[in-house]
Amino acid sequence: MELPSYRLQLPDWVGACIQEPDKIFHTVEERMELAITLAVNNINNNGGPFGAAIFEQHSGRLVAPGVNLVLQSNCSVVHAEIVAIMLAQQKVANFDLGAEGLPGYELVTTTEPCAMCLGAIPWSGINSLVCGARDEDARSIGFDEGDKPENWTHKLQSRSISVTRDILRDKAKGVLQQYIDAGGIIYNGRVQITK
Amino acid sequence: MELPSYRLQLPDWVGACIQEPDKIFHTVEERMELAITLAVNNINNNGGPFGAAIFEQHSGRLVAPGVNLVLQSNCSVVHAEIVAIMLAQQKVANFDLGAEGLPGYELVTTTEPCAMCLGAIPWSGINSLVCGARDEDARSIGFDEGDKPENWTHKLQSRSISVTRDILRDKAKGVLQQYIDAGGIIYNGRVQITK
Repeated sequence: MELPSYRLQLPDWVGACIQEPDKIFHTVEERMELAITLAVNNINNNGGPFGAAIFEQHSGRLVAPGVNLVLQSNCSVVHAEIVAIMLAQQKVANFDLGAEGLPGYELVTTTEPCAMCLGAIPWSGINSLVCGARDEDARSIGFDEGDKPENWTHKLQSRSISVTRDILRDKAKGVLQQYIDAGGIIYNGRVQITK
Repeated sequence: MELPSYRLQLPDWVGACIQEPDKIFHTVEERMELAITLAVNNINNNGGPFGAAIFEQHSGRLVAPGVNLVLQSNCSVVHAEIVAIMLAQQKVANFDLGAEGLPGYELVTTTEPCAMCLGAIPWSGINSLVCGARDEDARSIGFDEGDKPENWTHKLQSRSISVTRDILRDKAKGVLQQYIDAGGIIYNGRVQITK
C-alpha cells in the first residue's frame, strides 16, 4: 500500500516575523505580543486567527513559533499550540520538554486551548501555559473549543503546570474579531460556517 | 530564524502489514484485527503499543493506518489516532473528513482515546469511533489517559459521532500487557517509568 505522509512546515513569512532570533523575551507580555503578531500575520496569509510560541521559561529565548495551519495544510490537528509543541520537540530532539537536563519551557497561546490542545499539554512536558483570549471569547465568536473537563486550569496545575490567563486578553480577543470581520471561515470539524 | 520542521511518515514495515491495499474490511472486528496487528508490529519495532486505522465506514476500504510514533520521532503528539487522522486527511485532501461529497469515515483504535486524541476527534470529521481496550485497561498498566470530560462517549454521540466499545477488548488489552512484559517504557509527559 502506498502510505500517505505529511510535512509540518511553517510558512516562510513566519521566519520574517522573527527578525532577531537571539532576542530575549523577558516578560509574558512580550511573549504574547509575538504570538499575537503570528496570529495576525496568519490571518493575512489565509490562515486561522491563532498563534502560539514556546520559550525557554527562565531565559526567555524563543524555541519554536506556531500558527494554525488547518486550512492551509488540510489537517485538523495542526492548531497553533500543537504546531509549537511538535516543532519545539524537534528542536530539542526530545518528546518530553520536561526531561532532565532541559531548561523548562513555557507555551504562550493567543487563545485558551481547545480540548485537543489541552489534552496535548501534559504529554508535551511544558512547565507553564500562558493564555491571551479566554475560551469564552472564542466561543462567543462561533469557534467550538470542544468538551473540556471542568476546572481544566486546576487539572493542569495539579500536574505541576502553571497557568497564567488574560495576558493582553483584549488585544488577543481583537484578533479573533478581526478574523470574523474579514470574513474568515469558522471551521468546527464538520460544521463550516462562512460569515 | 531557522524554522524547525517535522515529517510525519509511517515506518516501511507498515506498508508490509497491508498486503492487499484493496482489501475490504467488512466488519469492525476485521478492522480491529488490522489495528492490533499494527500495534503488535509497532512494539516489535521499538514503538508504543497502540495502533489505529481509518476506514471508509460503509465500504470498509482502508484509508490510512496509524501507529504511535512518539518514541521513534521525538514527538508527544503522534499517538496512533492522531497519525491516522492526519494521514487520512492528506489522502482525501480535506481537513474535514465529514465534508460534503466524502463517503464518511470510521476511526478504529486499539485503546480508547486519551484526552488529546478525544479532543481531536470532533475536529477530524469522522462519523464513527470503534475502540478495543478500555481507558481503564491502559490506566491499570500505568499509562496516563489524561483528564477527559465525564461521559465522554455521550459527548461524542451528541456530536453525531457513534462510539462502539469493547471490540476484541481482551486481545487489545493483551497487546498492552505484551508491551509491559517486554520492558516497554511508560511515557507520560514528564514522568517516565521503565518497568
